[in-house]
Amino acid sequence: MTRVLLAIDVGGSTSRANLIDRQGRCLGQGRNRGGNPGSNPPDMAAAAIVAAVEAAVTDSGLQHLEIDLALIAMAGPRAHVAQGKLEEAFARLGLTGPLVFTGDLQAMLASVTASMNGYCLVCGTGAGAVRLRNGEIDRVIDASGWLLGDAGSGYWLGHHAARAATEDLEGRGDKTALTRALLDALNIEWTDERGRDSRPKPLQHFINAIYAMRPIELARFAPLVIANRTDPVAARLLAEAEAYLLKDFRLVFDPSMPAPVGLGGGIIAHLTGLPQAIGDLVRSAGHAPDIRLVTDGSVGAVVLALRASGVAVDEAMVQEITASLADHSAKAVVRA
Amino acid sequence: MTRVLLAIDVGGSTSRANLIDRQGRCLGQGRNRGGNPGSNPPDMAAAAIVAAVEAAVTDSGLQHLEIDLALIAMAGPRAHVAQGKLEEAFARLGLTGPLVFTGDLQAMLASVTASMNGYCLVCGTGAGAVRLRNGEIDRVIDASGWLLGDAGSGYWLGHHAARAATEDLEGRGDKTALTRALLDALNIEWTDERGRDSRPKPLQHFINAIYAMRPIELARFAPLVIANRTDPVAARLLAEAEAYLLKDFRLVFDPSMPAPVGLGGGIIAHLTGLPQAIGDLVRSAGHAPDIRLVTDGSVGAVVLALRASGVAVDEAMVQEITASLADHSAKAVVRA
Repeated sequence: MTRVLLAIDVGGSTSRANLIDRQGRCLGQGRNRGGNPGSNPPDMAAAAIVAAVEAAVTDSGLQHLEIDLALIAMAGPRAHVAQGKLEEAFARLGLTGPLVFTGDLQAMLASVTASMNGYCLVCGTGAGAVRLRNGEIDRVIDASGWLLGDAGSGYWLGHHAARAATEDLEGRGDKTALTRALLDALNIEWTDERGRDSRPKPLQHFINAIYAMRPIELARFAPLVIANRTDPVAARLLAEAEAYLLKDFRLVFDPSMPAPVGLGGGIIAHLTGLPQAIGDLVRSAGHAPDIRLVTDGSVGAVVLALRASGVAVDEAMVQEITASLADHSAKAVVRA
Repeated sequence: MTRVLLAIDVGGSTSRANLIDRQGRCLGQGRNRGGNPGSNPPDMAAAAIVAAVEAAVTDSGLQHLEIDLALIAMAGPRAHVAQGKLEEAFARLGLTGPLVFTGDLQAMLASVTASMNGYCLVCGTGAGAVRLRNGEIDRVIDASGWLLGDAGSGYWLGHHAARAATEDLEGRGDKTALTRALLDALNIEWTDERGRDSRPKPLQHFINAIYAMRPIELARFAPLVIANRTDPVAARLLAEAEAYLLKDFRLVFDPSMPAPVGLGGGIIAHLTGLPQAIGDLVRSAGHAPDIRLVTDGSVGAVVLALRASGVAVDEAMVQEITASLADHSAKAVVRA
């Protein structure tokens, strides 16, 4: 009988499960598609989480597991709408202790520091900033979702790229390389022909293609904005995104609380002026900036699972956990 | 046996049917909810159109109808996805001739002028401008829908009001009277309390309420922007909307084609600077402006139904039709 902990990092597009021992060493890893009930149908979301955990158990090769505690780090409320299903499935896999929920932002900070105080600035599909004090959320700015906020996010970039392409094709906005990039991504052929209502045919096809998508899927165009960053329209969108994120940070930053700043999400590393601008802001308050890029957000779920089961985690241990997860992933690649 | 024509004006929120004789006199009127398959489920949309026509037949009091031609004016493609159902239902009601489709923008222009050349500038739930030449669409600007365009529309105003309220509640944007107006409209109680994630409770309730709506429903907040037009944030939104609409008009206006300009949609009369700005633009091209507010968009469907059945319609007849429809409506109000 091997006693382990289970740490699960649930995002909108990926769910990652890690089985660890009480020293934070990775014994098994699994992943599946997104398990966030906010962006996925609840049953599918729960099934994805369970599949990621099953994959981690298989990966560990362990026959007789006793899971002392399971922790799920996830955006939104501190419960899963399909919590009953999760508890049943986890019990079958050997969970004897509690199932604990925590926020994705707490996990993000814990991915880069052992400090209980800190800031996270996130730009992935969504965007926002948060201040954590004593491990709890003290202030949130934005992260209000695609319709009400997420200014500067991957969705915002993709949406504005689609609007810019529409305006270009209509002759209402600037010519931009984004137009051809988006048409190509949607397999829409370029032609000078116009349709019955006088609209250019590529525009009509583009409009039809966009309205056939779920709005949140417009985030898939964000990488095209990044790839075309020398185009003036794309450059302006990236500069605006950077300005939104910097403003979010300015609003959560408390000059009397110097602390590490975690930068997370798939887009943030492409907002290349941010680290300097954040550093300047922190320095102007008389502190040395400590800015860390979140490269593996699942480290934080492991840290929080350890803490939830009574293990003290210091900076050295965060580094060891990061190394152990990376090492295990690398070996998995070699095995595959 | 009375021989009549059937003219139907189908919008996103209302379908209106008029039974008319060949002099354009109204014999019966009916209305029902929206029948546009773009903004309503197709079966519901078709049922709404049929119900409006049945109401018009009942209203006419005529027992033996022969409908020589039916015309549907509607945004989008020149067919209804539930066309078979419509044809069956219309045949039951006495249609012996063709069912003809035409665009809502052609009908809008025909609601205010007999001219086959003209411009329409529309600001309702959506927004855009169109140039009509010889009765056909020659140029369209915007009208690209809520996600890709409709800049300055009722949706745009409502969406931006909701974003402004979010930013105000977060402390990320300016204080605005729109916040309390929107919270009141959604029956969200004001409180200074904060939730578990440190967000103000009204903000959390607001976010939940907005994401429970279909995005297009945000257009319902546009009247709150208009009602609060002395508020600086609301005033800025209305000024931006006006600028978008004026730009749309500038792009469709052909200085070599002076023609009437129809202003349509439920919001446009509230963009109070537009008539002057459009007049200045037309005058700068050396023409006398001829700007007409569309007060009853169903007049155009009647005009187009008459033309489709071979009746010539001049300016005097457009006026007579307008008077006849208004007169019939007024009597209906008295009867009710």
